[in-house]
Amino acid sequence: MTLSRQVVLRRRPRGLPLAEDFEIVSQPMPVIAAGEAMIRTLYCSLDPAMRRWMDEDSYSDPIPLGAPLRCLCLGQVQESRNKELRSGDLLLAMGTVGQHSIVPEGRWFSRVEPSGNWPLSRYLSLFGLNGMTAYFGLLDIGRPQPDETVLVSGAAGSVGSLVGQIAKINGCHTVGVAGGARKCRRLIEEFSFDAAIDYRNRTLAQLTADVRAACPQGVDIYFDNVGGVVLDAALAAINDRARLVECGMISLYNLSERGAGPSNIWQIIAKRATMRGFLGREYLDRFPEAIVQLRSWAREGRIQTREHVDVGLERFHEAFLRLFDGSNEGKLMLKIADPDQGDAAGP
Amino acid sequence: MTLSRQVVLRRRPRGLPLAEDFEIVSQPMPVIAAGEAMIRTLYCSLDPAMRRWMDEDSYSDPIPLGAPLRCLCLGQVQESRNKELRSGDLLLAMGTVGQHSIVPEGRWFSRVEPSGNWPLSRYLSLFGLNGMTAYFGLLDIGRPQPDETVLVSGAAGSVGSLVGQIAKINGCHTVGVAGGARKCRRLIEEFSFDAAIDYRNRTLAQLTADVRAACPQGVDIYFDNVGGVVLDAALAAINDRARLVECGMISLYNLSERGAGPSNIWQIIAKRATMRGFLGREYLDRFPEAIVQLRSWAREGRIQTREHVDVGLERFHEAFLRLFDGSNEGKLMLKIADPDQGDAAGP
Repeated sequence: MTLSRQVVLRRRPRGLPLAEDFEIVSQPMPVIAAGEAMIRTLYCSLDPAMRRWMDEDSYSDPIPLGAPLRCLCLGQVQESRNKELRSGDLLLAMGTVGQHSIVPEGRWFSRVEPSGNWPLSRYLSLFGLNGMTAYFGLLDIGRPQPDETVLVSGAAGSVGSLVGQIAKINGCHTVGVAGGARKCRRLIEEFSFDAAIDYRNRTLAQLTADVRAACPQGVDIYFDNVGGVVLDAALAAINDRARLVECGMISLYNLSERGAGPSNIWQIIAKRATMRGFLGREYLDRFPEAIVQLRSWAREGRIQTREHVDVGLERFHEAFLRLFDGSNEGKLMLKIADPDQGDAAGP
Repeated sequence: MTLSRQVVLRRRPRGLPLAEDFEIVSQPMPVIAAGEAMIRTLYCSLDPAMRRWMDEDSYSDPIPLGAPLRCLCLGQVQESRNKELRSGDLLLAMGTVGQHSIVPEGRWFSRVEPSGNWPLSRYLSLFGLNGMTAYFGLLDIGRPQPDETVLVSGAAGSVGSLVGQIAKINGCHTVGVAGGARKCRRLIEEFSFDAAIDYRNRTLAQLTADVRAACPQGVDIYFDNVGGVVLDAALAAINDRARLVECGMISLYNLSERGAGPSNIWQIIAKRATMRGFLGREYLDRFPEAIVQLRSWAREGRIQTREHVDVGLERFHEAFLRLFDGSNEGKLMLKIADPDQGDAAGP
């Protein structure tokens, strides 16, 4: 019998996940029903939201104990009982951290149609959900105007670094917040930010002063990937009618007790600001327009992308922790397998 | 020389304002410049935001020490060097807590044109900024749909009680939060709320349970007048794509230290919610349509309004504190003078 290896949730983590919270198990190959397809996973995207899904009070359905972890996968169809999908097709879809996943009818995000010489991994970063999140979150929710100031937290990360670059292309003053001098240098040198703020070991009062100094005209758009004290400092510096684009609050995801919220929340009223939470996948039907634009900017060298690829399911725990200690050097993913070129070409 | 009495700020309050923070002084009558008008104040509207203006870090320009307090006034033009205003005209305008105010050119909110038998005070409550704030905050920002659940804090207050009634007229399930059994009874009996929650002496966990019990379908719109723990409890119960209409955070205005913010702020992302701060006066150019609609609902008996009128400048401190101990029984205002009927009729 052919087996498929999966990373399952053994125990709900308290705080930072421990290796013992997960286990790699070999299971019989999944059997697909009419309308479904089975994909062989090429890359698993490792994202902060996955930490939340491990909690009992998760905002999506919590993962049951003993069940495989969920993640965004770039996979190749191995078997299909869906007439729109053929063996060899490449898909972005929610799947499991494992070798194979079932894709229910109509439930994939998008078909991956490689063009140019982009590595396949790019379809999980710049041309994947991260790129879509940065593109639509900034342009559609933030609605930047030339000369406005855009403050981005998690700015060295896969979403934040794109937000900064897209804001710059749109004529904004861009300020990034990241952890550590090396990442802050990278914001300026690689991702074209106008200024960088190192949040490490800073109090709210210090961070507030940092934000005000780096944003002398105030903050028109705050693109938030971290929540916590950086959100609080950003609120202290927002302009009238500021937009707070709430993409993530990674600083909270490993807290076993909910911490205090932002003490400057009253600024929302004082500045008649809008704070909006969103998910990149809300924009599914507009992904193609974003991909065309991002490809063009990337070809012109106006957008730089970094990826951090760890290899093999057994590296899952070690790799996943990078999201929280910041040791990943770009969009974090786990490579599981190479595409089957023969199938991919297809008849 | 004719004098004009004004309440001036002597000292910035710490926490709840003390009587000694204010002083009534007699000043020479203001002299108007070209384009300006002088109004005789009939009613001063007493509003929570006035407490904020007394702080150094106020969100509008802080009131200088020794200067008169600012408030919304219903006044009658006594002298005009503006060609659009005639002696006797009635206006809603920002002015001072005092007998007379200068109205700069084009800086009044609206002309008051009494019709029907409404008492003049109604133009500071239902047909004034409170009514406009409730009407546009709920309908334009909240955008209620039939059968949605609308949760309102400060629900027995001048804005909150209108929000509940307008939401009910729009076919929503309405739940009000207020302080004390008497006000909660009033929510149901007088303001047609479907359910009432008494927030007094309740922990966050208890309030969260109360909100969930009163909103079995979850909260689609939270109209916030208080911030603090009620906001936190509301966040815990919001539905996907909820709208949080941020009108005020009175629970914070007397804190000498900023308290912690809402610990459930991450729900904004989890539920893809929108939180928007606004001021009723953003809708200045649409006031007339709201007044027509509110008059019609009030005539049909579908909207009840309560007013609490204290009389005389010397009552300012005592009256103002009602906003914070909840002892006012409706829209709070200070009556300063009666209109001059002769002038009001005009030539």
